[in-house]
Amino acid sequence: MTFRSTVLTLYPEMFPGPLGTSLAGRALREGRWSLDAVNIRDFTTDRHRTVDDTPAGGGAGMVLRADIVSRAVDAHADGRPIVAMTPRGAPLTQARVRELAAGRGAVVLCGRFEGFDERLFDARPIEQLSIGDYILSGGEMAALVLLDACVRLLPGVMGAASSGVEESFESGILEYPHYTRPVEWEGRTIPEVLRSGDHAKIAGWRQAQAEIDTRLRRPDLWERHEGARVGSPSGARRRTEDD
Amino acid sequence: MTFRSTVLTLYPEMFPGPLGTSLAGRALREGRWSLDAVNIRDFTTDRHRTVDDTPAGGGAGMVLRADIVSRAVDAHADGRPIVAMTPRGAPLTQARVRELAAGRGAVVLCGRFEGFDERLFDARPIEQLSIGDYILSGGEMAALVLLDACVRLLPGVMGAASSGVEESFESGILEYPHYTRPVEWEGRTIPEVLRSGDHAKIAGWRQAQAEIDTRLRRPDLWERHEGARVGSPSGARRRTEDD
Repeated sequence: MTFRSTVLTLYPEMFPGPLGTSLAGRALREGRWSLDAVNIRDFTTDRHRTVDDTPAGGGAGMVLRADIVSRAVDAHADGRPIVAMTPRGAPLTQARVRELAAGRGAVVLCGRFEGFDERLFDARPIEQLSIGDYILSGGEMAALVLLDACVRLLPGVMGAASSGVEESFESGILEYPHYTRPVEWEGRTIPEVLRSGDHAKIAGWRQAQAEIDTRLRRPDLWERHEGARVGSPSGARRRTEDD
Repeated sequence: MTFRSTVLTLYPEMFPGPLGTSLAGRALREGRWSLDAVNIRDFTTDRHRTVDDTPAGGGAGMVLRADIVSRAVDAHADGRPIVAMTPRGAPLTQARVRELAAGRGAVVLCGRFEGFDERLFDARPIEQLSIGDYILSGGEMAALVLLDACVRLLPGVMGAASSGVEESFESGILEYPHYTRPVEWEGRTIPEVLRSGDHAKIAGWRQAQAEIDTRLRRPDLWERHEGARVGSPSGARRRTEDD
Protein backbone atom coordinates (compact mmCIF):
# COMPACT_ATOMS: atom_id res chain seq x y z
CA MET A 1 0.00 0.00 0.00
CA THR A 2 1.34 3.40 -0.99
CA PHE A 3 1.30 6.23 1.55
CA ARG A 4 -0.45 9.00 -0.39
CA SER A 5 0.24 12.59 0.60
CA THR A 6 -1.51 15.62 -0.81
CA VAL A 7 -0.14 19.02 0.20
CA LEU A 8 -2.40 22.06 -0.13
CA THR A 9 -0.16 25.10 -0.38
CA LEU A 10 0.41 28.49 -2.00
CA TYR A 11 3.95 27.33 -2.85
CA PRO A 12 3.65 23.97 -4.64
CA GLU A 13 7.14 24.54 -6.08
CA MET A 14 8.57 23.85 -2.60
CA PHE A 15 7.64 20.15 -3.00
CA PRO A 16 9.08 17.57 -3.02
CA GLY A 17 12.16 19.77 -2.43
CA PRO A 18 14.40 18.06 0.12
CA LEU A 19 12.03 15.07 0.13
CA GLY A 20 13.15 14.38 -3.44
CA THR A 21 16.67 13.51 -2.26
CA SER A 22 18.20 10.89 0.03
CA LEU A 23 16.09 8.04 1.46
CA ALA A 24 12.74 9.81 1.03
CA GLY A 25 13.57 10.65 -2.60
CA ARG A 26 14.50 7.08 -3.43
CA ALA A 27 11.32 5.82 -1.75
CA LEU A 28 9.30 8.36 -3.75
CA ARG A 29 10.81 7.13 -7.02
CA GLU A 30 10.19 3.54 -5.95
CA GLY A 31 6.52 4.35 -5.40
CA ARG A 32 6.55 3.60 -1.66
CA TRP A 33 4.83 6.92 -1.14
CA SER A 34 3.39 9.65 -3.37
CA LEU A 35 3.31 13.41 -3.08
CA ASP A 36 0.84 15.66 -4.83
CA ALA A 37 1.39 19.39 -4.26
CA VAL A 38 -1.79 21.32 -5.02
CA ASN A 39 -2.03 25.10 -5.30
CA ILE A 40 -4.79 26.49 -3.08
CA ARG A 41 -5.08 29.31 -5.63
CA ASP A 42 -6.60 26.80 -8.07
CA PHE A 43 -9.72 26.92 -5.89
CA THR A 44 -10.29 30.66 -6.10
CA THR A 45 -13.21 32.08 -8.02
CA ASP A 46 -12.18 35.64 -8.92
CA ARG A 47 -9.82 36.63 -11.68
CA HIS A 48 -7.22 37.90 -9.18
CA ARG A 49 -7.14 34.40 -7.63
CA THR A 50 -7.54 35.87 -4.14
CA VAL A 51 -6.97 33.47 -1.23
CA ASP A 52 -6.75 35.92 1.66
CA ASP A 53 -8.28 39.03 3.16
CA THR A 54 -7.57 41.45 6.02
CA PRO A 55 -8.19 40.27 9.62
CA ALA A 56 -11.63 41.04 11.02
CA GLY A 57 -11.14 43.45 13.91
CA GLY A 58 -7.95 44.86 12.43
CA GLY A 59 -4.28 44.04 12.79
CA ALA A 60 -1.28 43.26 10.62
CA GLY A 61 -1.07 40.62 7.91
CA MET A 62 -3.64 38.66 5.99
CA VAL A 63 -5.87 35.71 6.84
CA LEU A 64 -6.56 32.71 4.59
CA ARG A 65 -10.25 32.64 3.66
CA ALA A 66 -12.35 29.73 4.93
CA ASP A 67 -14.49 29.59 1.79
CA ILE A 68 -11.47 29.20 -0.50
CA VAL A 69 -9.43 26.83 1.66
CA SER A 70 -12.45 24.63 2.43
CA ARG A 71 -12.97 24.14 -1.29
CA ALA A 72 -9.38 22.89 -1.65
CA VAL A 73 -9.84 20.61 1.36
CA ASP A 74 -13.19 19.23 0.18
CA ALA A 75 -11.76 18.39 -3.24
CA HIS A 76 -9.22 16.06 -1.61
CA ALA A 77 -11.16 14.67 1.36
CA ASP A 78 -11.27 10.90 0.79
CA GLY A 79 -11.02 9.49 4.30
CA ARG A 80 -7.31 10.21 4.81
CA PRO A 81 -6.55 12.34 7.88
CA ILE A 82 -6.57 16.06 7.08
CA VAL A 83 -3.96 17.97 9.04
CA ALA A 84 -3.20 21.69 9.09
CA MET A 85 0.27 22.85 10.04
CA THR A 86 -0.16 25.77 12.45
CA PRO A 87 1.57 27.03 15.60
CA ARG A 88 -1.84 26.90 17.32
CA GLY A 89 -1.96 23.14 16.81
CA ALA A 90 -1.18 20.19 19.06
CA PRO A 91 2.55 19.44 19.30
CA LEU A 92 3.56 16.74 16.84
CA THR A 93 4.79 13.62 18.61
CA GLN A 94 6.54 10.49 17.43
CA ALA A 95 3.44 8.52 18.48
CA ARG A 96 1.25 10.58 16.12
CA VAL A 97 3.86 10.24 13.36
CA ARG A 98 3.76 6.47 13.81
CA GLU A 99 -0.06 6.42 13.57
CA LEU A 100 -0.08 8.56 10.45
CA ALA A 101 2.67 6.47 8.81
CA ALA A 102 0.63 3.30 9.44
CA GLY A 103 -2.33 4.79 7.58
CA ARG A 104 -3.20 5.49 3.95
CA GLY A 105 -1.54 8.90 3.88
CA ALA A 106 -2.59 12.44 4.68
CA VAL A 107 -3.91 15.68 3.26
CA VAL A 108 -1.58 18.36 4.62
CA LEU A 109 -2.74 21.97 4.67
CA CYS A 110 -0.05 24.67 4.84
CA GLY A 111 -0.82 28.00 6.49
CA ARG A 112 0.68 31.30 5.40
CA PHE A 113 0.42 34.91 6.55
CA GLU A 114 -1.46 35.21 9.86
CA GLY A 115 -3.12 31.81 9.44
CA PHE A 116 -6.55 30.42 8.61
CA ASP A 117 -10.01 31.79 9.26
CA GLU A 118 -10.89 29.88 12.45
CA ARG A 119 -14.30 28.84 11.12
CA LEU A 120 -12.50 26.38 8.84
CA PHE A 121 -11.69 24.26 11.90
CA ASP A 122 -15.23 24.47 13.26
CA ALA A 123 -16.70 23.34 9.96
CA ARG A 124 -14.29 20.63 8.82
CA PRO A 125 -12.64 17.67 10.61
CA ILE A 126 -9.11 19.11 10.39
CA GLU A 127 -6.41 18.18 12.91
CA GLN A 128 -4.21 21.15 13.80
CA LEU A 129 -0.57 20.18 14.31
CA SER A 130 2.46 22.21 15.37
CA ILE A 131 6.02 20.97 14.85
CA GLY A 132 7.39 23.19 17.64
CA ASP A 133 7.14 26.40 19.64
CA TYR A 134 8.63 28.76 17.09
CA ILE A 135 7.28 30.67 14.09
CA LEU A 136 8.02 29.73 10.48
CA SER A 137 7.37 31.74 7.34
CA GLY A 138 4.66 29.23 6.48
CA GLY A 139 3.35 25.72 6.94
CA GLU A 140 5.35 24.35 4.04
CA MET A 141 8.50 23.71 6.08
CA ALA A 142 6.35 22.03 8.74
CA ALA A 143 4.69 19.84 6.10
CA LEU A 144 8.14 18.74 4.86
CA VAL A 145 9.09 17.83 8.44
CA LEU A 146 5.85 15.88 9.02
CA LEU A 147 6.20 13.94 5.77
CA ASP A 148 9.90 13.20 6.32
CA ALA A 149 9.10 11.81 9.77
CA CYS A 150 6.32 9.61 8.32
CA VAL A 151 8.16 8.43 5.21
CA ARG A 152 11.21 7.11 7.06
CA LEU A 153 8.87 4.73 8.92
CA LEU A 154 7.29 3.25 5.78
CA PRO A 155 8.20 -0.38 5.04
CA GLY A 156 11.39 -0.69 2.99
CA VAL A 157 12.50 2.93 3.36
CA MET A 158 15.14 2.61 6.07
CA GLY A 159 17.97 0.18 5.43
CA ALA A 160 18.04 -1.65 8.73
CA ALA A 161 14.54 -2.48 9.94
CA SER A 162 15.80 -2.49 13.51
CA SER A 163 16.92 1.12 13.33
CA GLY A 164 14.12 3.33 14.53
CA VAL A 165 12.98 1.46 17.60
CA GLU A 166 15.82 2.63 19.84
CA GLU A 167 15.61 6.26 18.71
CA SER A 168 14.85 9.20 20.97
CA PHE A 169 11.13 9.47 21.94
CA GLU A 170 10.30 5.95 20.73
CA SER A 171 10.50 4.76 24.32
CA GLY A 172 9.35 8.10 25.71
CA ILE A 173 12.85 9.33 26.62
CA LEU A 174 15.97 10.54 24.82
CA GLU A 175 18.25 8.06 23.15
CA TYR A 176 21.53 7.12 24.84
CA PRO A 177 24.78 8.75 23.60
CA HIS A 178 26.72 7.12 20.78
CA TYR A 179 30.42 6.47 20.29
CA THR A 180 32.46 5.05 17.45
CA ARG A 181 36.08 4.72 16.33
CA PRO A 182 38.70 6.03 16.82
CA VAL A 183 38.85 4.54 20.34
CA GLU A 184 40.92 7.52 21.42
CA TRP A 185 40.37 11.00 20.00
CA GLU A 186 42.00 14.15 21.37
CA GLY A 187 42.77 12.27 24.57
CA ARG A 188 39.14 11.19 25.03
CA THR A 189 38.36 7.47 24.99
CA ILE A 190 35.19 5.54 24.30
CA PRO A 191 33.62 4.55 27.67
CA GLU A 192 35.17 1.30 28.90
CA VAL A 193 31.87 -0.55 29.23
CA LEU A 194 31.13 -0.19 25.50
CA ARG A 195 34.36 -2.05 24.75
CA SER A 196 33.67 -4.83 27.26
CA GLY A 197 31.69 -7.11 24.96
CA ASP A 198 29.28 -7.69 27.86
CA HIS A 199 25.94 -7.10 26.16
CA ALA A 200 23.85 -7.04 29.34
CA LYS A 201 26.17 -4.51 30.94
CA ILE A 202 26.16 -2.38 27.77
CA ALA A 203 22.34 -2.41 27.66
CA GLY A 204 22.20 -1.43 31.33
CA TRP A 205 24.69 1.41 30.86
CA ARG A 206 22.81 2.73 27.83
CA GLN A 207 19.48 2.67 29.65
CA ALA A 208 21.02 4.50 32.63
CA GLN A 209 22.64 7.11 30.35
CA ALA A 210 19.37 7.65 28.48
CA GLU A 211 17.58 8.23 31.78
CA ILE A 212 20.27 10.59 33.13
CA ASP A 213 20.33 12.65 29.93
CA THR A 214 16.53 12.85 29.80
CA ARG A 215 16.30 13.96 33.43
CA LEU A 216 18.97 16.62 32.94
CA ARG A 217 18.09 17.88 29.48
CA ARG A 218 14.37 17.30 29.30
CA PRO A 219 12.73 17.33 32.73
CA ASP A 220 9.39 17.81 30.92
CA LEU A 221 9.84 14.57 28.99
CA TRP A 222 11.04 12.74 32.08
CA GLU A 223 8.03 13.84 34.10
CA ARG A 224 5.64 12.64 31.40
CA HIS A 225 7.54 9.36 31.12
CA GLU A 226 7.40 8.77 34.88
CA GLY A 227 3.75 9.81 34.92
CA ALA A 228 2.97 7.17 32.28
CA ARG A 229 4.92 4.53 34.19
CA VAL A 230 2.93 5.11 37.37
CA GLY A 231 -0.23 5.81 35.37
CA SER A 232 -2.15 2.84 36.78
CA PRO A 233 -4.60 3.76 39.57
CA SER A 234 -2.50 2.02 42.23
CA GLY A 235 0.68 3.65 40.97
CA ALA A 236 -0.91 7.09 41.01
CA ARG A 237 -2.19 6.55 44.53
CA ARG A 238 1.17 5.38 45.77
CA ARG A 239 2.74 8.49 44.32
CA THR A 240 0.33 10.81 46.08
CA GLU A 241 0.96 9.13 49.40
CA ASP A 242 4.70 9.66 49.03
CA ASP A 243 4.28 13.41 48.55
CA MET B 1 24.96 43.22 8.41
CA THR B 2 24.33 39.95 6.61
CA PHE B 3 23.22 36.91 8.58
CA ARG B 4 25.74 34.28 7.47
CA SER B 5 24.73 30.64 7.70
CA THR B 6 27.01 27.68 7.03
CA VAL B 7 25.40 24.26 6.96
CA LEU B 8 27.61 21.20 7.49
CA THR B 9 25.84 18.25 5.93
CA LEU B 10 26.19 15.03 3.95
CA TYR B 11 23.47 16.34 1.62
CA PRO B 12 24.49 19.84 0.49
CA GLU B 13 22.15 19.46 -2.50
CA MET B 14 19.21 19.89 -0.07
CA PHE B 15 20.14 23.58 0.33
CA PRO B 16 18.81 26.19 -0.11
CA GLY B 17 15.89 24.00 -1.29
CA PRO B 18 12.66 25.53 0.04
CA LEU B 19 14.67 28.46 1.44
CA GLY B 20 15.38 29.49 -2.16
CA THR B 21 11.70 30.33 -2.72
CA SER B 22 9.19 32.78 -1.23
CA LEU B 23 10.30 35.43 1.29
CA ALA B 24 13.49 33.62 2.35
CA GLY B 25 14.53 33.14 -1.28
CA ARG B 26 14.01 36.78 -2.14
CA ALA B 27 15.99 37.83 0.95
CA LEU B 28 18.76 35.41 -0.06
CA ARG B 29 18.98 36.97 -3.53
CA GLU B 30 18.92 40.45 -1.98
CA GLY B 31 21.91 39.50 0.20
CA ARG B 32 20.07 39.91 3.51
CA TRP B 33 21.42 36.52 4.49
CA SER B 34 23.80 33.99 2.98
CA LEU B 35 23.82 30.21 2.94
CA ASP B 36 26.88 28.06 2.38
CA ALA B 37 26.21 24.30 2.30
CA VAL B 38 29.41 22.39 2.99
CA ASN B 39 29.83 18.65 2.52
CA ILE B 40 31.24 16.99 5.66
CA ARG B 41 32.77 14.42 3.32
CA ASP B 42 35.21 17.09 2.13
CA PHE B 43 36.92 16.71 5.52
CA THR B 44 37.59 12.98 5.28
CA THR B 45 41.12 11.67 4.86
CA ASP B 46 40.71 8.23 3.26
CA ARG B 47 39.99 7.54 -0.37
CA HIS B 48 36.54 6.12 0.47
CA ARG B 49 35.66 9.45 2.11
CA THR B 50 34.36 7.67 5.21
CA VAL B 51 32.42 9.83 7.70
CA ASP B 52 30.91 7.13 9.91
CA ASP B 53 31.61 3.85 11.66
CA THR B 54 29.66 1.22 13.60
CA PRO B 55 28.45 2.08 17.15
CA ALA B 56 30.83 1.11 19.96
CA GLY B 57 29.10 -1.55 22.02
CA GLY B 58 27.03 -2.76 19.06
CA GLY B 59 23.61 -1.89 17.73
CA ALA B 60 22.00 -0.86 14.45
CA GLY B 61 23.03 2.02 12.23
CA MET B 62 26.17 4.08 11.94
CA VAL B 63 27.65 6.90 14.02
CA LEU B 64 29.27 10.08 12.65
CA ARG B 65 32.94 10.16 13.61
CA ALA B 66 34.13 12.88 15.99
CA ASP B 67 37.51 13.25 14.26
CA ILE B 68 35.95 13.93 10.86
CA VAL B 69 33.05 16.13 12.00
CA SER B 70 35.29 18.20 14.31
CA ARG B 71 37.52 19.00 11.33
CA ALA B 72 34.51 20.36 9.41
CA VAL B 73 33.42 22.34 12.46
CA ASP B 74 36.90 23.76 13.16
CA ALA B 75 37.25 24.91 9.56
CA HIS B 76 34.18 27.15 9.98
CA ALA B 77 34.44 28.24 13.63
CA ASP B 78 34.73 32.02 13.53
CA GLY B 79 32.78 33.12 16.57
CA ARG B 80 29.32 32.45 15.19
CA PRO B 81 27.22 30.08 17.32
CA ILE B 82 27.69 26.45 16.31
CA VAL B 83 24.50 24.42 16.60
CA ALA B 84 23.91 20.73 15.96
CA MET B 85 20.42 19.57 15.04
CA THR B 86 19.75 16.43 17.08
CA PRO B 87 16.73 14.93 18.88
CA ARG B 88 18.89 14.83 22.03
CA GLY B 89 19.18 18.63 21.99
CA ALA B 90 17.34 21.39 23.83
CA PRO B 91 13.93 22.19 22.35
CA LEU B 92 14.16 25.12 19.93
CA THR B 93 12.16 28.09 21.19
CA GLN B 94 11.13 31.37 19.60
CA ALA B 95 13.30 33.15 22.18
CA ARG B 96 16.38 31.25 20.97
CA VAL B 97 15.42 31.91 17.35
CA ARG B 98 15.20 35.62 18.11
CA GLU B 99 18.67 35.62 19.73
CA LEU B 100 20.23 33.76 16.82
CA ALA B 101 18.55 36.05 14.27
CA ALA B 102 19.97 39.08 16.07
CA GLY B 103 23.51 37.73 15.72
CA ARG B 104 26.02 37.33 12.90
CA GLY B 105 24.66 33.98 11.75
CA ALA B 106 25.27 30.34 12.63
CA VAL B 107 27.17 27.20 11.72
CA VAL B 108 24.55 24.48 11.56
CA LEU B 109 25.62 20.86 11.86
CA CYS B 110 23.25 18.22 10.49
CA GLY B 111 23.19 14.74 12.01
CA ARG B 112 22.47 11.58 10.06
CA PHE B 113 22.25 7.87 10.82
CA GLU B 114 22.32 7.22 14.60
CA GLY B 115 23.90 10.61 15.34
CA PHE B 116 27.28 12.01 16.37
CA ASP B 117 30.04 10.51 18.47
CA GLU B 118 29.25 12.10 21.84
CA ARG B 119 32.88 13.19 22.41
CA LEU B 120 32.32 15.87 19.77
CA PHE B 121 30.09 17.73 22.26
CA ASP B 122 32.56 17.32 25.11
CA ALA B 123 35.40 18.72 23.03
CA ARG B 124 33.75 21.56 21.12
CA PRO B 125 31.37 24.38 22.15
CA ILE B 126 28.43 23.06 20.15
CA GLU B 127 24.83 23.81 21.14
CA GLN B 128 22.55 20.83 20.60
CA LEU B 129 19.08 21.82 19.41
CA SER B 130 15.96 19.79 18.69
CA ILE B 131 13.05 21.13 16.64
CA GLY B 132 10.57 18.71 18.23
CA ASP B 133 9.90 15.34 19.82
CA TYR B 134 9.88 13.24 16.66
CA ILE B 135 12.53 11.58 14.53
CA LEU B 136 13.58 12.84 11.10
CA SER B 137 15.71 11.11 8.47
CA GLY B 138 18.45 13.63 9.25
CA GLY B 139 19.27 17.06 10.59
CA GLU B 140 18.88 18.74 7.22
CA MET B 141 15.14 19.25 7.55
CA ALA B 142 15.70 20.63 11.05
CA ALA B 143 18.36 23.02 9.73
CA LEU B 144 15.89 24.29 7.12
CA VAL B 145 13.35 24.92 9.86
CA LEU B 146 15.86 26.73 12.08
CA LEU B 147 17.06 28.95 9.25
CA ASP B 148 13.54 29.72 8.04
CA ALA B 149 12.56 30.79 11.57
CA CYS B 150 15.64 33.04 11.80
CA VAL B 151 15.49 34.53 8.31
CA ARG B 152 11.90 35.76 8.60
CA LEU B 153 13.01 37.90 11.55
CA LEU B 154 15.86 39.62 9.69
CA PRO B 155 15.34 43.32 8.93
CA GLY B 156 13.51 43.88 5.65
CA VAL B 157 12.44 40.26 5.12
CA MET B 158 8.83 40.41 6.27
CA GLY B 159 6.59 42.92 4.56
CA ALA B 160 4.89 44.46 7.59
CA ALA B 161 7.37 45.09 10.38
CA SER B 162 4.57 44.82 12.92
CA SER B 163 3.78 41.27 11.90
CA GLY B 164 5.72 38.90 14.09
CA VAL B 165 5.18 40.45 17.50
CA GLU B 166 1.64 39.15 17.97
CA GLU B 167 2.45 35.64 16.75
CA SER B 168 2.10 32.51 18.83
CA PHE B 169 4.90 32.07 21.43
CA GLU B 170 6.14 35.66 21.09
CA SER B 171 4.21 36.53 24.24
CA GLY B 172 4.64 33.05 25.70
CA ILE B 173 1.17 31.84 24.72
CA LEU B 174 -0.69 30.88 21.54
CA GLU B 175 -1.95 33.56 19.22
CA TYR B 176 -5.66 34.40 19.20
CA PRO B 177 -7.88 32.96 16.43
CA HIS B 178 -8.27 34.88 13.18
CA TYR B 179 -11.30 35.65 11.04
CA THR B 180 -11.78 37.35 7.71
CA ARG B 181 -14.40 37.88 5.05
CA PRO B 182 -16.90 36.56 4.09
CA VAL B 183 -18.76 37.76 7.20
CA GLU B 184 -21.04 34.74 6.91
CA TRP B 185 -19.78 31.41 5.63
CA GLU B 186 -21.82 28.17 5.76
CA GLY B 187 -24.07 29.78 8.37
CA ARG B 188 -21.12 30.72 10.59
CA THR B 189 -20.50 34.39 11.27
CA ILE B 190 -17.44 36.34 12.35
CA PRO B 191 -17.68 36.98 16.13
CA GLU B 192 -19.72 40.13 16.75
CA VAL B 193 -16.99 41.87 18.79
CA LEU B 194 -14.56 41.83 15.84
CA ARG B 195 -17.08 43.82 13.81
CA SER B 196 -17.74 46.34 16.58
CA GLY B 197 -14.94 48.76 15.73
CA ASP B 198 -14.23 49.05 19.46
CA HIS B 199 -10.47 48.54 19.53
CA ALA B 200 -10.17 48.14 23.29
CA LYS B 201 -12.92 45.54 23.36
CA ILE B 202 -11.33 43.72 20.42
CA ALA B 203 -7.94 43.67 22.13
CA GLY B 204 -9.54 42.34 25.31
CA TRP B 205 -11.42 39.61 23.46
CA ARG B 206 -8.31 38.53 21.60
CA GLN B 207 -6.26 38.35 24.80
CA ALA B 208 -8.99 36.29 26.48
CA GLN B 209 -9.25 33.93 23.49
CA ALA B 210 -5.47 33.48 23.37
CA GLU B 211 -5.47 32.57 27.07
CA ILE B 212 -8.42 30.18 26.76
CA ASP B 213 -6.90 28.41 23.76
CA THR B 214 -3.49 28.14 25.42
CA ARG B 215 -5.00 26.70 28.60
CA LEU B 216 -7.06 24.16 26.67
CA ARG B 217 -4.60 23.19 23.96
CA ARG B 218 -1.25 23.71 25.62
CA PRO B 219 -1.46 23.33 29.40
CA ASP B 220 2.37 22.93 29.37
CA LEU B 221 2.82 26.34 27.75
CA TRP B 222 0.25 27.92 30.05
CA GLU B 223 1.96 26.56 33.15
CA ARG B 224 5.33 27.95 32.03
CA HIS B 225 3.70 31.28 31.18
CA GLU B 226 2.04 31.54 34.60
CA GLY B 227 5.27 30.41 36.26
CA ALA B 228 7.18 33.22 34.54
CA ARG B 229 4.51 35.75 35.55
CA VAL B 230 4.89 34.85 39.23
CA GLY B 231 8.61 34.26 38.75
CA SER B 232 9.70 37.11 41.06
CA PRO B 233 11.00 35.92 44.47
CA SER B 234 7.92 37.22 46.27
CA GLY B 235 5.63 35.65 43.68
CA ALA B 236 7.36 32.29 44.01
CA ARG B 237 7.10 32.47 47.80
CA ARG B 238 3.43 33.40 47.69
CA ARG B 239 2.81 30.46 45.39
CA THR B 240 4.46 28.02 47.75
CA GLU B 241 2.41 29.27 50.66
CA ASP B 242 -0.79 28.72 48.73
CA ASP B 243 0.07 25.04 48.11
